[in-house]
Order: sequence, then structure tokens, then C-alpha cells
Amino acid sequence: MPGKVYLVGAGPGAADLITLRAAKLLAAADAVLYDALVTPETLALARRAKLIPVGKRAGLRSTAQQLINQRLIETAQTHSLVVRLKGGDPMLFGRAQEEIAALDAAGIAWEVVPGITAALGASAALGISLTRRGMARSVVFVTPRIGPEERDSEWLKAAIGSDTAVLYMAGDQAVEVCAALAAAGMPLARPAALVVSAATPDQQVFFTTLEGLPETMRHRHSGPALVLLGEVYADALAAATTMAAATVQSGATPAV
Amino acid sequence: MPGKVYLVGAGPGAADLITLRAAKLLAAADAVLYDALVTPETLALARRAKLIPVGKRAGLRSTAQQLINQRLIETAQTHSLVVRLKGGDPMLFGRAQEEIAALDAAGIAWEVVPGITAALGASAALGISLTRRGMARSVVFVTPRIGPEERDSEWLKAAIGSDTAVLYMAGDQAVEVCAALAAAGMPLARPAALVVSAATPDQQVFFTTLEGLPETMRHRHSGPALVLLGEVYADALAAATTMAAATVQSGATPAV
Repeated sequence: MPGKVYLVGAGPGAADLITLRAAKLLAAADAVLYDALVTPETLALARRAKLIPVGKRAGLRSTAQQLINQRLIETAQTHSLVVRLKGGDPMLFGRAQEEIAALDAAGIAWEVVPGITAALGASAALGISLTRRGMARSVVFVTPRIGPEERDSEWLKAAIGSDTAVLYMAGDQAVEVCAALAAAGMPLARPAALVVSAATPDQQVFFTTLEGLPETMRHRHSGPALVLLGEVYADALAAATTMAAATVQSGATPAV
Repeated sequence: MPGKVYLVGAGPGAADLITLRAAKLLAAADAVLYDALVTPETLALARRAKLIPVGKRAGLRSTAQQLINQRLIETAQTHSLVVRLKGGDPMLFGRAQEEIAALDAAGIAWEVVPGITAALGASAALGISLTRRGMARSVVFVTPRIGPEERDSEWLKAAIGSDTAVLYMAGDQAVEVCAALAAAGMPLARPAALVVSAATPDQQVFFTTLEGLPETMRHRHSGPALVLLGEVYADALAAATTMAAATVQSGATPAV
């Protein structure tokens, strides 16, 4: 009889920002298949499991999704408690639906355990609400992509239409993405926050504007970059500007 | 010397869906100020703290935000570790920014600990990705409100512009909100999920369409209602329809 697969959110990075349910499952797991962005500290919670890397990381290396699905099914056929550990939350910008469909087709039981998505991890570290009362009552999360095969206008419409916009995985095409947002009508002075490696010891925070974003991007290190745009960052930008530089960089909020 | 205040996300409801960091803080807390939607199971993690309810719940009772701010400051002046426990995530649709501003003005240190927001808790329970690949690359979270003093068009533009739209706190004005979405151009056949009391033992799940939503709303119980709209719910709606009824209702996913 095959085992059960738990698709578990690993959260933004810090090992103590996963849920109690996720920690309990990791401690009991026989096998853990994990993404490249999952930190060693989080993996250490899986004390007795076989650890199987199946990371895809843009530009570094790639394991085709079909191979991950196959590996997941094979592992569930020989282990009773399998955790599929995904960075952030499994139901937001992961490819969990394809893994769920493959598990269903193979007759393997599954369950999803949510995680803290990067936008919430970054907002906690910034101490700035995504939906500050009187200023923002909508926030959109998008993965912008520029290219002939992409439905450009759709993510642009979403990003332009919301009070606050969070761009996931925007690092690679920052110049093109900012140009597209400006061309679609977003003011160049729109305040922006750039958070790199949110909620990890390597976290970087910058405040800038849509106009300044491509240049600011050049100062970031190589971790996953999250771009947050909206009037809710105006106060922080003004404070950072007052502090003599147009950008400010801070360390991570220490864990308790 | 005043204590420190941690603004902590309690997650969607289940006590084991808070983070390890939140659980550790609750166990160590001297005082906990909590919202009406925080469950007794979650509060039980605060073993030694003074428990102070400061709940606001639309239509039931209301404690003015200024009084909450005042209570928070007074508590921090007499307790060293204070947790301000908020349903979901503190940086999304809470009024944390006002509490942070009040703490800053009073010279009290604070830190934010993120939580699982209802949309992610509900999506895990549904097993349906908010951003299924090839179908959705943007998701917006909005609090729709209809009224002469509201900026109607802003949240409508956001909800219409995104592939997937999640409406928080839409229960009270469901008829008006659905009519406004349809008038703004959202197709009446747009698939929808209604999740009530996400990630609690009382969870209810319905699949319907924008057109069917107001009627479906009448069958829900009184817990907090989350509406999710988008093509990503089409398969689940078709499956539910095949199961003889236009709506399907299921129990909560059991905790492990």
C-alpha cells in the first residue's frame, strides 16, 4: 500500500516560520523531497527522513517537473509518510497542482499544509502593512514575465489595478518589467520596497521608486527578490531618503 | 522600562497552523491581547499569560481601535513580553499599522511575526492552487465594500484585473458585491469557491459561479466567509456539479 504525501509550505526561509503542523510532519517523515530554496535549518527538522533534493532554480539548474512528479510517486510507493517541502506556500506560485494531479492519477493520497508566503514574511520584516487602512484595500501577487509567448497584458492589468502590487520572481527581468509597468500607466514616483532573501539572515531591504528600481536591483545580492509597489511604502521611503541615502539596507529581524 | 510587543498572526484557525515562532512567544508571554476570531485552542498555547480580549467583530460588538491601542500601551508598560494576537496575518487586512504607530509614539519596541492568511488556509483545504500554471499568474486579495463613502471602483478594478480574486469579509454585502462585479464585466459563469471558517472544524466549502454566489451565501453558517473567484475553480465546480448537486459541502481537513 502506498504512503501519503503531504505538500508542505516551508515558509519564507527562517526555520521557526513554518507551522507547528509542518514541523510535526517533518519530524515524523520517512522521506522529504525539497526545493532548492528550502534552508538547511528547516531541513534539520526532518530528523529521521531520507532527504531528496528536487530543486529547480531559474538559471542554475533544472529538474523537469515530470521527473519530480515521477520521483514523488516512486518515493510514496516505498515510504509511508512523505513530505514534499516547497518554499513559501504550496498553493501560490508553486507547481503543486501538477504534482497533485500526478498523485491523483497514481492513486496516492495527499494533503496540503499551508506556509507563510514571501510577501507576508517580507511585510512582517518591514513592519509595513500590505493594506494600510485608508490607503490600500487590495493587494495583488503576480509573477511578471516579458516575452512573446507570455500574456503580458494580463499581469500588467492586475499590477496596475491594485493598490499594492507584489512582484514575485521579478529579479531576472527587472528593467523590462519596470518599463512595462511605467508604459501601462504606473507613476514613476510610485514608492517601492525591494526585499531580497526575506526572513533569512541574508535579508536585504531597499526603499526606492518604480523609476529607481532597476538601478536599485543592481545592488542586491543573488537571493530571491521580492518587489513591493504602493503608496503604503511612501513613509518608509521618505524616512530612508531623509537618512541621507536614497536606499537603505538593513539586516534581518532577529528570531526570538 | 516598558516591555516589548509582538504583533503575531494566529493563522486561519487551527492551533497547529501558527508558526513555531508564534507558539514559542505565546508560551513565554506575560500578556496576550487577542481578537474575537482567535480560537480557544490557539489561546491555550499561552499557558502563563494574562488573556485580554479586544475583539472587534462586525455586527456583534466593537471596541474602538483607539481603545485597543491604549490597552496595548498600558499592558506593555506593566508586562515585559506582550503578544498582540491577530487572526490570519497581521500585515493583511488587520489594523496593525495603527497599533504600530501608537507603539512608536509611546516609545515601545515591537516586532511582527507573520501568520497564514485565510486565503492560503482555504486553498490548502481545497487543494486548489491560487495560481495554477497556464491558467493564472496573478491573484488579488481585496475587501470589497459598497457604499457612498467607499472608493468602489478601486477594489472592482483590482478584482476584475486579476486571474484569481479572493474577497475577504464579503459576507455581509454578498448580493451587492456580486452585482458590482458583474456590472464591471466579470462573467456570470466565472467559477467560485465559498469557504466558511477556513481551517477550523466548522469549515464549509461550496463551489458555484458568480451568478450562483448570492444564493449559495444563504446556505452558509455564521463564520467568516472567504470568496475565491477564477478559472482555477472550474474543475472542482464541474466535479461538484457532476455529483448531482450544484453545491458540495465538506468537513474540515483533519489535523495530523
